[in-house]
Amino acid sequence: MAGEISQSTVKDKCQRLTPQTTANLLDSVDAFLFDCDGVIWKGDVLIDGVSDTLDLLRSMGKKLVFVTNNSTKSRRQYAKKFHSVGISVSEDEIFCSSFAAAMYLKVNDFPIEKKVYVIGEEGILEELELAGFTPLGGPEDGKKTVHLKPNNFFEHDKSVGAVVVGLDQYINFYKLQYGTLCIRENPGCLFIATNRDAVGHLTDLQEWPGAGCMVAAICGTTQKNPIVVGKPSTFLMDFLLQKFNIPTSKMCMVGDRLDTDILFGENAGCRTLLVFSGVTKESDLQDSSTQIQPQYFTTTLSDILTLVDNTKSPL
Amino acid sequence: MAGEISQSTVKDKCQRLTPQTTANLLDSVDAFLFDCDGVIWKGDVLIDGVSDTLDLLRSMGKKLVFVTNNSTKSRRQYAKKFHSVGISVSEDEIFCSSFAAAMYLKVNDFPIEKKVYVIGEEGILEELELAGFTPLGGPEDGKKTVHLKPNNFFEHDKSVGAVVVGLDQYINFYKLQYGTLCIRENPGCLFIATNRDAVGHLTDLQEWPGAGCMVAAICGTTQKNPIVVGKPSTFLMDFLLQKFNIPTSKMCMVGDRLDTDILFGENAGCRTLLVFSGVTKESDLQDSSTQIQPQYFTTTLSDILTLVDNTKSPL
Repeated sequence: MAGEISQSTVKDKCQRLTPQTTANLLDSVDAFLFDCDGVIWKGDVLIDGVSDTLDLLRSMGKKLVFVTNNSTKSRRQYAKKFHSVGISVSEDEIFCSSFAAAMYLKVNDFPIEKKVYVIGEEGILEELELAGFTPLGGPEDGKKTVHLKPNNFFEHDKSVGAVVVGLDQYINFYKLQYGTLCIRENPGCLFIATNRDAVGHLTDLQEWPGAGCMVAAICGTTQKNPIVVGKPSTFLMDFLLQKFNIPTSKMCMVGDRLDTDILFGENAGCRTLLVFSGVTKESDLQDSSTQIQPQYFTTTLSDILTLVDNTKSPL
Repeated sequence: MAGEISQSTVKDKCQRLTPQTTANLLDSVDAFLFDCDGVIWKGDVLIDGVSDTLDLLRSMGKKLVFVTNNSTKSRRQYAKKFHSVGISVSEDEIFCSSFAAAMYLKVNDFPIEKKVYVIGEEGILEELELAGFTPLGGPEDGKKTVHLKPNNFFEHDKSVGAVVVGLDQYINFYKLQYGTLCIRENPGCLFIATNRDAVGHLTDLQEWPGAGCMVAAICGTTQKNPIVVGKPSTFLMDFLLQKFNIPTSKMCMVGDRLDTDILFGENAGCRTLLVFSGVTKESDLQDSSTQIQPQYFTTTLSDILTLVDNTKSPL
């Protein structure tokens, strides 16, 4: 019975955006944190009306922050992607999980003389280098092969003190063996996951294996659980809090996934808005087995444009 | 308290092979089931004294069965490998997890018109074909790449009704996406794991990622659990029982791993013998957190040679 009461309370909190609830949301929030894939764009295609909606929010004095679990790009590369689709953002407004991985090591005083093995793409290498660390692996190891012959010993660098695993479209057996050996054999070696998303919209037309795939593979070989630095862990949020000095109750996390975006916002004490332009469908939200509920939901981000207009029109 | 009593009972059951316990074991057993990697060989190198030990057991009228979770070879290819290291076995004495995957589909009346997508190596394809099924994927897809471009849709065969995942040293993003799409989008598509071993002695000098790595990757993207057909599932044992008509209490499972070999034997009601020539060390067995315990343990299989000689010598 207690379970039912609690679930009914949660469901009551979950409101569709209407002119009235949109006005309430905008009044109570100073900063919007946006997930990118499925909210701002799908693959390389900007979602309709997003640009005008961001302009509207900026014109209302809202601070905008773009938070993404995608680890393939650095903040610099993300700023370039934003510009290419016609949205102007500064690197400082971007918090991607490649940056989070580098910052996790920095905040935790990872010894500068130790190396970091990367199963992932260019973005992680760039952020690690910018933070002063020495990455190994990444795209360079994408073409390496293994030779399973007698007396052929697979060597790994004993000075690797952390393995960072993110989305890697060039995943191969070489990298899986390298990362596994570091974690199993180098004393104290950290196992850091940029995120554990099962799938992601790497292209506009369909979903593809996410970092959760590569992370699970390494969990499978090492029998260890990683430190997760992207959503829904609150590591990124602690960083945002320090940087902007806006209480989380005045922030709203906007995302398309219940298990990362909305959970991330909820864990951090933010307001939360779920959009259906990405992974989650409205029917998923209504599913009674869904434990995670946003405070607000709407079809797509640009609904805000229409709803704000309606609040201004005379009754 | 109940937990302590139970653990102490289990520990009491665990006996080192001595001349006396070896005699007891040999008297009570009609068939020996051997794991291969870490018991018979390491990589491509036969473990010392194994050949003579097998000859001795054969001379005593014991039935020998070679059970392996390695899915990279078919029974035919395994028989060839046995011959190449100097041991003569027939295909009928070999039970590998590639064969188990094909038999699982056969026993469960998998429709012959449906296809089977394979993340794994040649052995799985060969066993599937021998059983009359149509495999896709496998080594052929090892060189395929994906192009994450807008409007580039990744097609998969809608008639795939099962995805079999085993050890795959040519694992890549293409295969991970293909297998994931079949399991997520083809209604009723089965997800079959040859086994979930974390690592294995693919070469004599060191361990490498096992099928558990690739299986975990697909669990990560699909958020589903597989049907496991290799050890420690009892599917293979049910097969052996039907074939040889020897009660499991008259069988002894010999292996180097607690969590697959010994658990497999225990689950099936066999006697169990752990050897330390592979993954498990004697210190692992003494670790109080170890829940799985063999009935007998010894350093290496050929200890039986010496111990049997000692039982014959006058006091």
